[in-house]
Amino acid sequence: MAARDHYQNERHRVREVRLRPLSFVDEVESGADLGAILGHTMSRFEPQAASHDILVVAQKIVSKAEGRFVLWRDIVPGSLARSLAERTGKDPRLVELVLSESSEVVRAVPGVLIVRHRLGFTMANAGIDLSNAGRQDRAILLPLDPDCSAARIADGIAKTIGVRPAVLISDSFGRPWRVGVTNVAIGLCGMPALLNRRGSKDRDGRQLEGTEVALADAVAASAGLLMGEADENVPAVLVSGLGPFVGDQPAAALVRPAEADLFR
Amino acid sequence: MAARDHYQNERHRVREVRLRPLSFVDEVESGADLGAILGHTMSRFEPQAASHDILVVAQKIVSKAEGRFVLWRDIVPGSLARSLAERTGKDPRLVELVLSESSEVVRAVPGVLIVRHRLGFTMANAGIDLSNAGRQDRAILLPLDPDCSAARIADGIAKTIGVRPAVLISDSFGRPWRVGVTNVAIGLCGMPALLNRRGSKDRDGRQLEGTEVALADAVAASAGLLMGEADENVPAVLVSGLGPFVGDQPAAALVRPAEADLFR
Repeated sequence: MAARDHYQNERHRVREVRLRPLSFVDEVESGADLGAILGHTMSRFEPQAASHDILVVAQKIVSKAEGRFVLWRDIVPGSLARSLAERTGKDPRLVELVLSESSEVVRAVPGVLIVRHRLGFTMANAGIDLSNAGRQDRAILLPLDPDCSAARIADGIAKTIGVRPAVLISDSFGRPWRVGVTNVAIGLCGMPALLNRRGSKDRDGRQLEGTEVALADAVAASAGLLMGEADENVPAVLVSGLGPFVGDQPAAALVRPAEADLFR
Repeated sequence: MAARDHYQNERHRVREVRLRPLSFVDEVESGADLGAILGHTMSRFEPQAASHDILVVAQKIVSKAEGRFVLWRDIVPGSLARSLAERTGKDPRLVELVLSESSEVVRAVPGVLIVRHRLGFTMANAGIDLSNAGRQDRAILLPLDPDCSAARIADGIAKTIGVRPAVLISDSFGRPWRVGVTNVAIGLCGMPALLNRRGSKDRDGRQLEGTEVALADAVAASAGLLMGEADENVPAVLVSGLGPFVGDQPAAALVRPAEADLFR
């Protein structure tokens, strides 16, 4: 497998990974050419940007650029939403919006509404963002197709500065067994999402099954160290030193299929 | 809360995070003074090492230095282990060892044995390592108390080079809803495990509840980008640029208590 071979061959050459925040002043609004904005920011910030750098972009500004807003006043909660809102203590309009984005309710208890998002992600509130929406009369949904968004941004950067980095769109997710959120990859272009660690030999000299390493999620988590609570201030992080990569996978590869979910 | 205030005040000053692998040639064996070894390696590698750097150390070498080995020939599987071995298809001796390290079996299906480790971690095979044990006649268990191990290593480094970095002991964990493993923190000293993101205002101007960010797990995941499959080759990663930190928490703070587990 190409990704594994790459990892085997290249990892010893990784001598330093650098994470640098990209900030820009302008508010991103619906219709913004995010690839061009990020390309110009990269060129001001790092004239040496290379095609094997990874640009991690916060989901929120991607959604904003794509106009993924819903006005609260346009939402009419149905009976299922009203009943789940009562059970969870959440705003019925938020619950209606969560349901409209989801294929399944995984867990609904006081304070908690975990769903399977139509994109496959198991996540709280279908990833709907209430904070920093720019205006308080609207909610922000996930991008329609974050893997496509990543490719579009990479194309826009390439058109602007002539270099096409890998692009990773990240969002923060909770974990069932551990406290606190970490960032994961919800959209990806130009690098593998997973790497196969070759298994070692077992005690009888047999090759053990390899382990899959969630490379893109680790990159997203590392970029999250710089994004902090205010994605508005650090909407993108440039990760250098890991590539070049062999292989290209969508972030969808990181989603455990429902039939392989360990808790069904 | 100190950790939150730190985050609020300091994060805008994070201009670059650097991740650098520390390699050393000598095999670490039982009784090794890991603090001294890591201190000497750090001083050769980075004479500028600062007390607010974070040294991420692979669980495996900590366990080795602490002599956390069990010889396979000493393990006699009991009836529960034999029955679970049949159900999961795993070696009955491994299952016996997993049970001896665990407080509860969370999931046992073909190919999968997830337990609650006595330290609280929900993880596959109780974190027992079959690979790179140095010799094939033994398994490696997690450190007895990884938070203590981290403090001891930090003390040893301080004694050796006069600088006491934060120390994070990491291991790779699977995730129930996502494919692939990422590294998390199982031992910690000298930095906060979690940071409170201050909640933003809701649509009516009320302060929303803050989100907890799993800082130490994100640092572990980022270091995992350099550790790769062969912890032996890169047993430690130096993370610079995030600190200084206010506050000090054990990695145990990252463990969701059983009663707050979303799947019980």
